[in-house]
Amino acid sequence: MSDNPAASRLPRPIQYSEYLNLNQVLSAQTLESARYGNPAHDELLFVITHQAYELWFKQIVFELQSVIDIFDNSTVEDREMGQIIGWLSRITEIQVVLLQQINVIETMTPLDFLEFRDLLVPASGFQSIQFKQIEIMMGIKRDQRIPADRDFFLTRLSVDERQMLEGLERKPSLLELTDAWLARMPFLKFGVFEFWKEYELAVGKMLQSDRQIIAKNPAISDENRRWQMAAIEATQQRFESLLEKSRFDQLREKGEFRLSHRGFLAALFINLYRDEPMMYLPYRYLTLLLEIDQNFTNWRSRHALMVQRMLGRKIGTGGSSGHEYLNQTTEQNRVFLDLFALSTFLLPRSSLPKLPDELRRALGFHFAKTS
Amino acid sequence: MSDNPAASRLPRPIQYSEYLNLNQVLSAQTLESARYGNPAHDELLFVITHQAYELWFKQIVFELQSVIDIFDNSTVEDREMGQIIGWLSRITEIQVVLLQQINVIETMTPLDFLEFRDLLVPASGFQSIQFKQIEIMMGIKRDQRIPADRDFFLTRLSVDERQMLEGLERKPSLLELTDAWLARMPFLKFGVFEFWKEYELAVGKMLQSDRQIIAKNPAISDENRRWQMAAIEATQQRFESLLEKSRFDQLREKGEFRLSHRGFLAALFINLYRDEPMMYLPYRYLTLLLEIDQNFTNWRSRHALMVQRMLGRKIGTGGSSGHEYLNQTTEQNRVFLDLFALSTFLLPRSSLPKLPDELRRALGFHFAKTS
Amino acid sequence: MSDNPAASRLPRPIQYSEYLNLNQVLSAQTLESARYGNPAHDELLFVITHQAYELWFKQIVFELQSVIDIFDNSTVEDREMGQIIGWLSRITEIQVVLLQQINVIETMTPLDFLEFRDLLVPASGFQSIQFKQIEIMMGIKRDQRIPADRDFFLTRLSVDERQMLEGLERKPSLLELTDAWLARMPFLKFGVFEFWKEYELAVGKMLQSDRQIIAKNPAISDENRRWQMAAIEATQQRFESLLEKSRFDQLREKGEFRLSHRGFLAALFINLYRDEPMMYLPYRYLTLLLEIDQNFTNWRSRHALMVQRMLGRKIGTGGSSGHEYLNQTTEQNRVFLDLFALSTFLLPRSSLPKLPDELRRALGFHFAKTS
Amino acid sequence: MSDNPAASRLPRPIQYSEYLNLNQVLSAQTLESARYGNPAHDELLFVITHQAYELWFKQIVFELQSVIDIFDNSTVEDREMGQIIGWLSRITEIQVVLLQQINVIETMTPLDFLEFRDLLVPASGFQSIQFKQIEIMMGIKRDQRIPADRDFFLTRLSVDERQMLEGLERKPSLLELTDAWLARMPFLKFGVFEFWKEYELAVGKMLQSDRQIIAKNPAISDENRRWQMAAIEATQQRFESLLEKSRFDQLREKGEFRLSHRGFLAALFINLYRDEPMMYLPYRYLTLLLEIDQNFTNWRSRHALMVQRMLGRKIGTGGSSGHEYLNQTTEQNRVFLDLFALSTFLLPRSSLPKLPDELRRALGFHFAKTS
Repeated sequence: MSDNPAASRLPRPIQYSEYLNLNQVLSAQTLESARYGNPAHDELLFVITHQAYELWFKQIVFELQSVIDIFDNSTVEDREMGQIIGWLSRITEIQVVLLQQINVIETMTPLDFLEFRDLLVPASGFQSIQFKQIEIMMGIKRDQRIPADRDFFLTRLSVDERQMLEGLERKPSLLELTDAWLARMPFLKFGVFEFWKEYELAVGKMLQSDRQIIAKNPAISDENRRWQMAAIEATQQRFESLLEKSRFDQLREKGEFRLSHRGFLAALFINLYRDEPMMYLPYRYLTLLLEIDQNFTNWRSRHALMVQRMLGRKIGTGGSSGHEYLNQTTEQNRVFLDLFALSTFLLPRSSLPKLPDELRRALGFHFAKTS
Repeated sequence: MSDNPAASRLPRPIQYSEYLNLNQVLSAQTLESARYGNPAHDELLFVITHQAYELWFKQIVFELQSVIDIFDNSTVEDREMGQIIGWLSRITEIQVVLLQQINVIETMTPLDFLEFRDLLVPASGFQSIQFKQIEIMMGIKRDQRIPADRDFFLTRLSVDERQMLEGLERKPSLLELTDAWLARMPFLKFGVFEFWKEYELAVGKMLQSDRQIIAKNPAISDENRRWQMAAIEATQQRFESLLEKSRFDQLREKGEFRLSHRGFLAALFINLYRDEPMMYLPYRYLTLLLEIDQNFTNWRSRHALMVQRMLGRKIGTGGSSGHEYLNQTTEQNRVFLDLFALSTFLLPRSSLPKLPDELRRALGFHFAKTS
Repeated sequence: MSDNPAASRLPRPIQYSEYLNLNQVLSAQTLESARYGNPAHDELLFVITHQAYELWFKQIVFELQSVIDIFDNSTVEDREMGQIIGWLSRITEIQVVLLQQINVIETMTPLDFLEFRDLLVPASGFQSIQFKQIEIMMGIKRDQRIPADRDFFLTRLSVDERQMLEGLERKPSLLELTDAWLARMPFLKFGVFEFWKEYELAVGKMLQSDRQIIAKNPAISDENRRWQMAAIEATQQRFESLLEKSRFDQLREKGEFRLSHRGFLAALFINLYRDEPMMYLPYRYLTLLLEIDQNFTNWRSRHALMVQRMLGRKIGTGGSSGHEYLNQTTEQNRVFLDLFALSTFLLPRSSLPKLPDELRRALGFHFAKTS
Repeated sequence: MSDNPAASRLPRPIQYSEYLNLNQVLSAQTLESARYGNPAHDELLFVITHQAYELWFKQIVFELQSVIDIFDNSTVEDREMGQIIGWLSRITEIQVVLLQQINVIETMTPLDFLEFRDLLVPASGFQSIQFKQIEIMMGIKRDQRIPADRDFFLTRLSVDERQMLEGLERKPSLLELTDAWLARMPFLKFGVFEFWKEYELAVGKMLQSDRQIIAKNPAISDENRRWQMAAIEATQQRFESLLEKSRFDQLREKGEFRLSHRGFLAALFINLYRDEPMMYLPYRYLTLLLEIDQNFTNWRSRHALMVQRMLGRKIGTGGSSGHEYLNQTTEQNRVFLDLFALSTFLLPRSSLPKLPDELRRALGFHFAKTS
C-alpha cells in the first residue's frame, strides 16, 4: 500500500479495514453446526475455503470479461494485446492458488466433515454460479455438457440465476471471439504468396521421403513395415483433412474441431512462425488460452479425487456420485482442445516453407526497416 | 458438499450461495478509483487479494486460538495432541496459499499500481489487525519489535483495536504455553535414571575423542589444528551453558534463548528420543511450530521483495521504505528460534545414552506390554 | 554439509564434487541432435529433466523398499512406524517435485521438440524400468494393467529387465503387506467387546431414524421421498455387504475391493478411532498411502495433458496415442482405492459406539496409566 | 518421446535407458556411511538431492550462456528476443523446482543428518562450482562478495576450477551485456523529440501540484505537513539525480546503481511505454531478469533457514555459522537491484508525456502501417 505524499491531493483519507470492508467480509462466516448447537471445529475452514474460491472466481470472471470486451467491440489493437496477455497470465497464477486450496481443504478429514455435512443439504458446490459463468465465458455450450450438468440448469438455479446464465450463453464466448479474430488475420494470403500450397508441398515431400526409407530399410520386419506404412497413410489423411475445407468441416461437425477452418489454419500459422515479432503476442495469447484450459482440467481432476476421498462411494441426489460426475466433466468441459491438436500438424523448422521477404518484413517492427 | 439423504432429518434446507453469504462477500469490493471516476483495472485484484489474505488470517487466528485453549485450560490429553497437530498442519498448508498469493499480486505491475496507489492513503497493509493478532498469539512481545512496529500500536490503531491487541498481549502466547507444557514433562527424572548426567558424559566422551584424533592427525597443518581445537572448546562451552541452569539463564536474559531451562531440555529430549512412541506426537508438535515460524519468516521475506519491486526506494510515512521495514521484521519477528537452535545440541544416535528399560516401557503403548 | 571438527576422527577428507561424483553425473548428457550435426537447443532440457526424474524414482524405490522390508521381515514395531511415516512423507514431497518438473518440460514448445523428436525412436518414457518398479512395489498387478501396458512387458524390455520386474511381481507388494498387517490387528475382538456388532446397531439406528423423518416430512414431494427412500436402501445394502464376509468377498472378486475383509475392517476402525493415541501412527500411515497414490494419479493425469500438448493426435507405435494411453492408466493404475472408499462407511462421531474402558486404556500410552 | 514413423529415416534406433545414460547416472550414488560400514538411511536422499541440484544448475548455466552468446556476438535481432524470453522463463520454472527441493531435503531431520554428517568433511555446498558460475554469469563481481565468499575462491577450489571461474569473471556478464544493449537503444532521441525534457516537466508539474495541496489542506497537522513537504523534497532530489548524468554517476560509484546512466534511462523508458508493441519483448526481458534474481534471493533465504534448522548454531570451518554466511549472501548477492529501483521513478499513465506520432509509429509493427 501507498504512503506517497502526492496522495495528499486527495481529500478522503481511508483506513485499511474500511477500504477492504473487513467488517462485512469477516462477519460473513455463519456456521450451520453452531446454529444447531453443535459447533464443528472444521466448518469454519469449509466456509472460508469456499468463500476464498468465490472471491477468486469473481476476479477470473472480471478478467475474462475484460478480454471479451476488447475482442467484442472492435479490432484488437496491438497495444491491447499486451494487456490481454497480462490478464490471462494473472488467471494462470490464480489457478495455482485454486489448486493449492484443495490441499488446504484436504486437511479436513472425512470424519471431521461428517460432523456437519448433513446440515448442508441441498447446498452443493455444483451450484457455484460464478464457476458456471467462467465455463460459459470460456466457451462451454449447454449441449456439450453431460446430462447431470444440463439438468442442473433446470433444477438447481433460481429464476434470476438461470436467466443470467442463459443470457451469457447467448453472447459470444472467448472461444468464438478468438476464432473470429484468427479468421480475420490478413497475412495468410499476403501478396502473391500462398502459404498453404507451400505447406502442402512440404508435407508431401516429408511423407514421400519417409515412405522410401521404410521401403528400403532392411532392419525392420515385414509386419513393422506394414504398420509404419499404414501410420504414414493415416498421417497423410490427417493433413489432407486439414487443408481441404470441406473435409475439415465434416470433422468439425462430428466435434473433432471447434475452430473454423480459417481460424484453425491461422492458429497453426502463428505456432509455426511465432519467432516473427508480429506473431509473438498472438502466440503467447494462444498458449495462455491453452494453459488456462489445462489448469481447469487439472483442477477438476484434483477436485474429483478430493471428493472421492471425502465421500467415498456415497450416491448423491443426482443419482451419481460426486466423484463420477466430476471425473466426467474433467474431460467433457475442456474448451480449447483444438490448441492441443495443433501439434499434430507442426513441421520441423528445417521443413518449414520460407516466408517471402515481403511478408517477413511485414511481420517485423516498423522501426527495424529504417535502421 | 453433501447430498446424503440422512440429512433429511434436518428441517432447514439451505442453498450454496445463502450458506456462504455470497451476496455479502461478493459485494464487498469497493474500488476507490471508481469512486473518483477513473476505474483502474487492477484495483479489483488488489482488493480481492487482500480480502483473501484476511479470510485466511481469520482461519489461522481460529486454529491458533483452538490450540491455545487446549494448552491453557488443563493438561493436554494424548488424544487432543492428534487434533492439535491436524490444526497446525492446516496452518502450514494455508501458508503455502499465502505465499502463492504473492505471485498473484505480482501480476500487477508497478505502473498499474500507480493508477490507484495514491488513493489509498493512509491505508497500509501494516494495519492488518488479524496479522498482528497472529504475531502476538505466536509469542511476539512488544519490546521485541522494531521501533516502527512499536509506534504502529500507538499511531495507527483505533482505541478498540489497540485495547483488543493489548489484551491479547497480556494473555499467555503459544510460545509461553508450550514452554510451560515442556517444563511439566515428568519423564526427565523417571525412576533413578538421571538423563542429563548420562548425556553430559556422552558429550564429554565425544569431545575427548575428537581432541585426541586432532592431536594425533599428521595430515593437518598446525594452524588448522589450532582452529579445530578452538572449535572443540567453543562446542564444549556451549554444551556447558546448556546443562548449567545459571549459565543458561544468563544467556536467556541476553535474548539467546526464549524457552526456560527445563523447557529447552525437554524439547531436546523429545528431539533425541522421538522414535519412542510417546515422543512421536510431541516431536511432530514441535516440528510444526518450527515450520509455521519458518513459513512466516519466508513469507515476510518474499513480501519485502514484492514491496521493493512495487515501490522501489520510495520513502513511506513512517520515514523508512516499506521494503526496509519488512526486511527488518523478517529476522526480528521470528518466535521459535530455540527450536532451530536445538540442532546445536544433538548427538549422533550411536553416542546417545540408552534409556533404562523401565523408561522405555513407559514411553511405549500400554497395549504393547501385554502382547 | 558439515564443518564439524569432530569429523576429524575420520581419516579420509572428501571434496564436494568428488563426493557427489559430479564428473560422472554431469558428463552423462549425450545429445542425439548433436550426434547428427544439428544440435537442438532444447534437447539438453529434455535429457536433464528425464535424468532428474530417474534420480527421484531411485529415491522413491529406495524408500518403498525400506518400508516393505520392515513389513516383510517381522511384526512392525511401534518405534519403526515413526520412521516409516517419515519415509512416506518424503515421497509425497518428492512427488511435488515430479509434478513441478512437468511445468519445466512444458517450457519446451512442440515446435522445439520436433527438432530432435524423430531421433529418439523407439525410446519411450514408458520404458522407465524404475517407474514400473514403483508401480509393482505399490501393488499393481499385471492382469490389472491395460493391454498396451501388458504388451510392454513382452515387447519393450530386455530379458534382464523383464526378469527383474517379474521377480518383483512375485514378491508381496505394499498393498498386500499392508493388508496382512491390518488383518493381524488384535484389538478388534478385545476382551468381550465385539466392535462390529455395536457398529451394526449404530448404523441400523441411524438409517431407521432417517426413514422416519423422510416418511413424516411434509415439505418434500412424493417423488423426492421415493428417491430418498431408495437411497437409504442402497446405503443399507452397502453397509450389509461390508459386514458380511461372504458378500464382501463376492464384491472383492468383482474388483470392488482389494483389501481382505479383515484388512478393510481394521482400516475402517483406525479411521474411526484415530484420536486414540495408539491409532494415530496407523492412521497417518494409511493417509500417506492414500496421498502417495493420489499424487501419482494426479501426476499421470498432468503427464497425459502434457503429452497431448506436445504430440497432438499423433498415433504412436503401439497403435494408440500417448495421450490416450496415459489417460487410461491414470484411472487404471490406482492402487489404494479401498482407502478412498472408506469414507462411505464412516459414522458421525456422535453415532460412534463408545469403546469399553479396557480397550481405550489399551490404546493409550503406558505412561498415562501410571500418572 | 516419439513414435513418429518419419523417424525411420534414421539409421540408429536408441532405447530409453541408453539415451539417458541411466547406467552412468544411477550408479553415481556412493554413500560414505556405507564405506565406513554404517549405512545411514538418509544419505541417499542427501546425495540424490544435491545431484538433482547440480543437474538443474547445468541447465541454468546452459540457458544463461545461450542468452549471453546472443547479446555478446552482435545486435540482438527481434526474432531472437522471443527465444531469449523462452529460455529465461524456463529458468524461472526450474527455480520453482530448486525451491521445492528444499522441502524434500527437510524431510531429513537434523538427527538423521548427524548419522553421516561428520563423514563429509570438508565437503561443503559452498563448493558448487556451477552455482558460482551462475552467480558470475549473472553479474556478481568478486569485490562485491562478502569476505568469507571471497576467501572461498582462494582456499576451497582446485587450480583448474579457480582458473575457469576467474576466466568467467573476466568475460562480460548478463548485467553488463544488458546494460550495453539498453544504452544502445536508439529511440530515446528519435527525431526532434527529447523525451527526458518532457519527463522532467511532467515530474515538476506533479510535485508542484502536490506542494500546493499540502500547503492548503486544513485537515492535516503542522507536523504532518512539515513531514510531507520534506518527503516531496526528497522525491525531487531523487528525480534530479536520475536526470543529471554527473549526479547519477556519483551515486553509481557509491554502489547505488549498477547500470549506466543511459542504460538505466532506457530501462525506465521501456517500463513506462511497455504497451507499445516494440517495447513488449524488452519489457518481458527485463521483468524476467528481475524475477530470476528475486527467485535466487528467495532460494538463498530459504536455504539459510534450512541450514540453521539442520545445524543450529554450530560454527563452520570458516569461523562463521553456515546460516549467517547464507543470510549475508542473500542480500549481498543480488544482481539486478536497479530493476527493483525503477519503480521509484514511474509516473502514473495520466502524467506520462505523450509520445509524438512519428515515434509511436516507429514502435509499432510495420504491418499496421499498411492496413
